[in-house]
Amino acid sequence: MVPIKVSLVKNILHANERISVQNKEFFDEKRILVINMMSAPGAGKTTLIEHTIKALDGEVNIGVIEGDIQSTYDAEKIAATGAQVVQINTGGACHLDGNMIRETFSQLDFDAMDLLIVENVGNLVCPAEFNVGEDFKVMLLSVPEGDDKPMKYPLMFHESSALLINKIDLLPYVTCSIDKIRADSLKINPNLKIFEISGKTEAGLDAWYAWLKQKIEDKK
Amino acid sequence: MVPIKVSLVKNILHANERISVQNKEFFDEKRILVINMMSAPGAGKTTLIEHTIKALDGEVNIGVIEGDIQSTYDAEKIAATGAQVVQINTGGACHLDGNMIRETFSQLDFDAMDLLIVENVGNLVCPAEFNVGEDFKVMLLSVPEGDDKPMKYPLMFHESSALLINKIDLLPYVTCSIDKIRADSLKINPNLKIFEISGKTEAGLDAWYAWLKQKIEDKK
Repeated sequence: MVPIKVSLVKNILHANERISVQNKEFFDEKRILVINMMSAPGAGKTTLIEHTIKALDGEVNIGVIEGDIQSTYDAEKIAATGAQVVQINTGGACHLDGNMIRETFSQLDFDAMDLLIVENVGNLVCPAEFNVGEDFKVMLLSVPEGDDKPMKYPLMFHESSALLINKIDLLPYVTCSIDKIRADSLKINPNLKIFEISGKTEAGLDAWYAWLKQKIEDKK
Repeated sequence: MVPIKVSLVKNILHANERISVQNKEFFDEKRILVINMMSAPGAGKTTLIEHTIKALDGEVNIGVIEGDIQSTYDAEKIAATGAQVVQINTGGACHLDGNMIRETFSQLDFDAMDLLIVENVGNLVCPAEFNVGEDFKVMLLSVPEGDDKPMKYPLMFHESSALLINKIDLLPYVTCSIDKIRADSLKINPNLKIFEISGKTEAGLDAWYAWLKQKIEDKK
């Protein structure tokens, strides 16, 4: 069993890497910035995307691919903003992969898009292992999850270019040190760009929008 | 690739099922109740286990197997209560399986144990697919994660015998309907036993302790 398993996992990763590189080439040609957004369930990815679409409306055309095991709730929320959106239901799979992204291509108008946000399945483990063709990965960590997460789930912090520490409005009511999250995250990934935000109060979002707009500009 | 993948996944699940049945037979012979505790990262599993050990001290001998990708923080917290504990570091794997549990057998004194709590890796997806030899699965959902989780991650709600809705002390500060969690969870699993608790204030924990003690009694 074990050698077969190891060999197969490698094969899957290699196949995914090949498709993801093709996706990346496609997006590069269209000069679309693609971000792969990851977090634990309920950390606030969809709310952040909704705010981002509204804040950049008129400046940046945003498309969204929603990944969920089941349901279309998140895609419905995004559709209500007027942005292009496709929902992927993985039917059990714990992460998105390059092939799932590729299968959405026929349903999106990439000529009318500057930024594609891929909202991955809520999972702090598996999505970090798979590229989908993105320029970079972004992760959210919400303060009720606690400040031990960088040291317990290091891969996602290592693979991400930006960390959004969300739900800072809850800091008075939970035991969580932002300083510890910052210090431990930067130990794992010294280049990580960190934002402190609240999806509820919209605190800290302006810095995120400015950073993102610069990245979109750089891709043009 | 696809047929190989399907066949292999089945093989892994079958192999795991075989080992887990052996584990279950071992625990049954010792009349130890075994629960497999699952949740998203940071939902409060370790704090619940700490409270449970302290509350049942003198009545029930509890052993704990801690599952984390990396780190020993959780095992250290449990060790401070005086309970037997073993830490499994999965080194990347997103769930515990029967074989990992089996490998801890030499490090635990099962003759001095009435209840074994297996704290799974924080992940609302993958752990629900694998038995480890437990009598039943228990899951936590913390209210900051939101009330859409049963419909988005149905398998874990389907596989669990009990759901602990945790962090109810945060209800005034987040958008989350306990009624919706209850209704949607029971649609997926009509037999689910639901507790509303707070690891912080210890609200609702007495009902959990009473239910758990009855289950331990039933196993004797």
